[in-house]
Amino acid sequence: MPNLTIPVEETMFLLKEVFGLEQLNTLPGYEEATDDLVEAILTEAGKFCTEVVLPTNRVGDTEGCTLHEDGRVTTPSGFKQAWEQYVEAGWMGLTVDPQYGGQGLPVTLNVILNEYIGTASLAFSMYPGLTQGAYAAMNVHASDAIKNTYLPKMAEGKWTGTMNLTEAHCGTDLGLLRTKAVASDDGSYKITGSKIFISAGDHDLAENIVHLVLARIEGAPKGTKGISLFVVPKFLPDSDNNPGDANHVSVGKIEEKMGIHGNSTCVMNFDGSTGWLVGAENGGLKAMFVMMNEARLGVAVQGLTQSEAAYQHARDYAMERLQGRSLTGPKNPDGPADPLIVHPDIRRMLMTMRSFNEAARAFCVYASMQSDIAHKHPDEKVRQQADDRLSLLTPVLKGHLTDVGFDNAVLGQQVFGGHGYIEETGASQFVRDARIAMIYEGANGIQALDLVGRKLMANGGRGIMALFQELGAYVEKHAADEALVPYILPLKAGAEDLQKATMWFGNNALGNPDHAGAGSVDYMHLFGTVMLGYMWAQMAEVATKNQDESRKSFFDTKLALAKFYMERTMPTTAMRRDRIMVGADSLMALPAEAF
Amino acid sequence: MPNLTIPVEETMFLLKEVFGLEQLNTLPGYEEATDDLVEAILTEAGKFCTEVVLPTNRVGDTEGCTLHEDGRVTTPSGFKQAWEQYVEAGWMGLTVDPQYGGQGLPVTLNVILNEYIGTASLAFSMYPGLTQGAYAAMNVHASDAIKNTYLPKMAEGKWTGTMNLTEAHCGTDLGLLRTKAVASDDGSYKITGSKIFISAGDHDLAENIVHLVLARIEGAPKGTKGISLFVVPKFLPDSDNNPGDANHVSVGKIEEKMGIHGNSTCVMNFDGSTGWLVGAENGGLKAMFVMMNEARLGVAVQGLTQSEAAYQHARDYAMERLQGRSLTGPKNPDGPADPLIVHPDIRRMLMTMRSFNEAARAFCVYASMQSDIAHKHPDEKVRQQADDRLSLLTPVLKGHLTDVGFDNAVLGQQVFGGHGYIEETGASQFVRDARIAMIYEGANGIQALDLVGRKLMANGGRGIMALFQELGAYVEKHAADEALVPYILPLKAGAEDLQKATMWFGNNALGNPDHAGAGSVDYMHLFGTVMLGYMWAQMAEVATKNQDESRKSFFDTKLALAKFYMERTMPTTAMRRDRIMVGADSLMALPAEAF
Repeated sequence: MPNLTIPVEETMFLLKEVFGLEQLNTLPGYEEATDDLVEAILTEAGKFCTEVVLPTNRVGDTEGCTLHEDGRVTTPSGFKQAWEQYVEAGWMGLTVDPQYGGQGLPVTLNVILNEYIGTASLAFSMYPGLTQGAYAAMNVHASDAIKNTYLPKMAEGKWTGTMNLTEAHCGTDLGLLRTKAVASDDGSYKITGSKIFISAGDHDLAENIVHLVLARIEGAPKGTKGISLFVVPKFLPDSDNNPGDANHVSVGKIEEKMGIHGNSTCVMNFDGSTGWLVGAENGGLKAMFVMMNEARLGVAVQGLTQSEAAYQHARDYAMERLQGRSLTGPKNPDGPADPLIVHPDIRRMLMTMRSFNEAARAFCVYASMQSDIAHKHPDEKVRQQADDRLSLLTPVLKGHLTDVGFDNAVLGQQVFGGHGYIEETGASQFVRDARIAMIYEGANGIQALDLVGRKLMANGGRGIMALFQELGAYVEKHAADEALVPYILPLKAGAEDLQKATMWFGNNALGNPDHAGAGSVDYMHLFGTVMLGYMWAQMAEVATKNQDESRKSFFDTKLALAKFYMERTMPTTAMRRDRIMVGADSLMALPAEAF
Repeated sequence: MPNLTIPVEETMFLLKEVFGLEQLNTLPGYEEATDDLVEAILTEAGKFCTEVVLPTNRVGDTEGCTLHEDGRVTTPSGFKQAWEQYVEAGWMGLTVDPQYGGQGLPVTLNVILNEYIGTASLAFSMYPGLTQGAYAAMNVHASDAIKNTYLPKMAEGKWTGTMNLTEAHCGTDLGLLRTKAVASDDGSYKITGSKIFISAGDHDLAENIVHLVLARIEGAPKGTKGISLFVVPKFLPDSDNNPGDANHVSVGKIEEKMGIHGNSTCVMNFDGSTGWLVGAENGGLKAMFVMMNEARLGVAVQGLTQSEAAYQHARDYAMERLQGRSLTGPKNPDGPADPLIVHPDIRRMLMTMRSFNEAARAFCVYASMQSDIAHKHPDEKVRQQADDRLSLLTPVLKGHLTDVGFDNAVLGQQVFGGHGYIEETGASQFVRDARIAMIYEGANGIQALDLVGRKLMANGGRGIMALFQELGAYVEKHAADEALVPYILPLKAGAEDLQKATMWFGNNALGNPDHAGAGSVDYMHLFGTVMLGYMWAQMAEVATKNQDESRKSFFDTKLALAKFYMERTMPTTAMRRDRIMVGADSLMALPAEAF
């Protein structure tokens, strides 16, 4: 098993020094979240992840999940024990409302916890992740009766959750879905249909599984307007709220996937299963969308996790593996060769990964703080601003962090040379596991369309204009600070590219919406690159002010990474701007049959 | 099994209309290679690949190779039958010297054949590929006795070859290798050691396997100067030149890899095995380097193959799969949704792949023609120029085509959404198979170092200067042709970026070699991007001159792809130039322990 350091120090630096934890613990209800408590919790979480979760990672990949002849699904060796410890320690309830048995801490801490767990084992992290997603949707939309039945069990981790959206013929285009719901006399529904790609669909970790299922009530309108959301438990809760009768929910098969083998991705069959409406009739999509920001932020974090795990893995190898000599003369003259870390191109790969990781972590912490502020701030205007910001940034987070996270896992694998291609080394797993995050919870092309087609224009462009204003003011404020010039000038150039591209859409996409589609993915990455640059500028700002000699090396490293990012990643913004501004013509020129 | 069209029409367009087959069939010995004969051979090859090779692709991935308890290695179902048909049809000898039983056709045809086979099944293509590599090294360096023993068998495909270089502790840094050779009285050697990552190391396709092994003769100098090359057959040829006694060569294990499961990648153990010197004592590296251009071109082609296979696979899905509606209104109003191909971002992915594939194919054909000219042209100066060009371009071909080929396989997978992550769909296999080409035959970082550290400066920079001159003259010649302006101007800008970056190395890398290492990979891709742009300009040139109405759609497609390439891929050159010119400082700033 490779070593893994959970980056608690990095997180605390962000919370305390870059963004300020007082932004959270001055919110009503979050007063307990002091520096000391947060640090104690994260330290404990880090320990839990390296000791309990990390050992599940490789075995999850090699063993995978099993569907037995009797219909039971079992997880790989050790998952059940790790899950028991997870439940025992109460991690599931960290940020859950105390009303349902949780600790009621800021959601930001859960996002951080999910990062740590996912870095240790992505497949394992999906079991709590899906449960949190299902919990969130029910918490907002379900009746009190349903909430009281299910949420305490889910907050404890005794019951886990799933999201049943996709059918074989419809993924992105949910309007096409066919799963049927027929009303019973008692107010429940009979659900019939087949769903595919259901993460954590069935397994042996929990005593019951709470399926949220999108289905079409008999006679409902066609398309997305006729979709409703139902809660369909694997076992019907009995009068003591324990799992009772089986509910005609079965597993058709476990999908053979490229990665995340430790998570049971199932075809789920509902055969007249009993379900109850969550939210309004035909309001299923609305109910799902409420939890999308949170779920998509969760997947964004997954991009970071695999890049972080791949970085540490490759870094350790680069320090140990002796191969070749430094271009500037031997650095390990008494050894047979120098360690890989002397080679500039090895450093380029590692610094590309790490300069992303640290900024991506900052971006995730920043975004999750916006979520807490949007929910809890006493001032409605502040809540709205935070909600605008999170809503705007969500597709950027999801698309940019998962695409780059995957690229970085590929870089990490490359550091190992031929050994990287051998499964035993473990580098391949990071690549294969990271790949899913670009696809699920809305493929990244869909994120990009959501960004340019919906988020940019929402409320008359209020969100993007506020961000440009903030970026402009930040650059102006620090432009005269000589120590910050190497970070501020590239950020300024990147932000200008983003503004130009945004204006270009404004001037052209209404006339021809294909122009928006044609540049959407480049725009999403341009946006992400600028946001990570903004994170680096803020981290550099703290670093340049440091007076504490004992922390000099910590901050020198920050400045070196910030400079690397500005020199090597920021120059991509101009290229993306140019690509966006050529528009759709060359894309749409060919008739379909010429492809 | 997915459909696959072998691109014979594309190849013939390149050979006849872009580069001119007369460049080959005016070379002495190649007079037979007329348009008609070449087209007939390639058509037959295409048929062979879709009918015989393609069925091995999926089963190769899912079954993999097996090491049995008795030490035998078997290939997946159907490989043996396909191999028999391959041998039967004489494909192995297509371009082999008639002296050893081959047909003596231009090497270019073999490169094309390898593309076709690799597009149908990369793992299968490695069995002939490795044999060709071993054949080439022996053909140049081995004694006549060895050549007469082995080459006819290899030319027939009855015996296959391998290359045994890597050991567990040394991959790139061959100077560290430890396999021993002890001279016997009869002029042979006893070889003892263990080699890893040996492609096609053992299998059930051939009656004998011819291992080329790098080893160190007792008392040889340390490092790369003390390495010799040996031929070590699995079975010692008997007096009738049939496989005789076993030669103490055994398989330690079959590696579990990320992909190319159909190829048996073995740990090979040599335990006092009998071998004979190939080339001079301690001249092993030199003997290997002779075949490197050819082997690296072969791997470059592999990058193209997986991008091509992934393109066709994703294209077919995009035409069929109904999901969502066009941004400009329904295109399939009577259906439940429009096909994916209406969406600009789907087209962006497909055109990114295809605009690479067609130019990469041109680049491979062009490079292999240089190889034929370098070997066969009567004029020594022409031979030298072709050799300079091929030598300069080899690392660019290998590094650029395999990196982008992999990226494109990932794009193809993305077109499938969630289905792309399921192994059954097949998109994951292209990604996993494509990944190896970035690593073996010299990892791409090593290619980049070879380019900037060796190839640029070879013979006082003669090769790169000749290329710049040619590019400049080409641009100047066509600059006034209005129909070509959309292709020539971006090419001109790209070529200028390449020249600037080259000059920057010239001015800075001698003072600090880390500057060359720091920019090497960006330079390799900048170079590759410009060369593919040059290929597109030449194809566009032919297209703009077309008067044949029946071929209008063929050429319209060419121009659309050329334009797309110039608009979307060419703008990366300026970014890479800028990255190169920031140099190594930010890369080398951190002490190793800060990573």
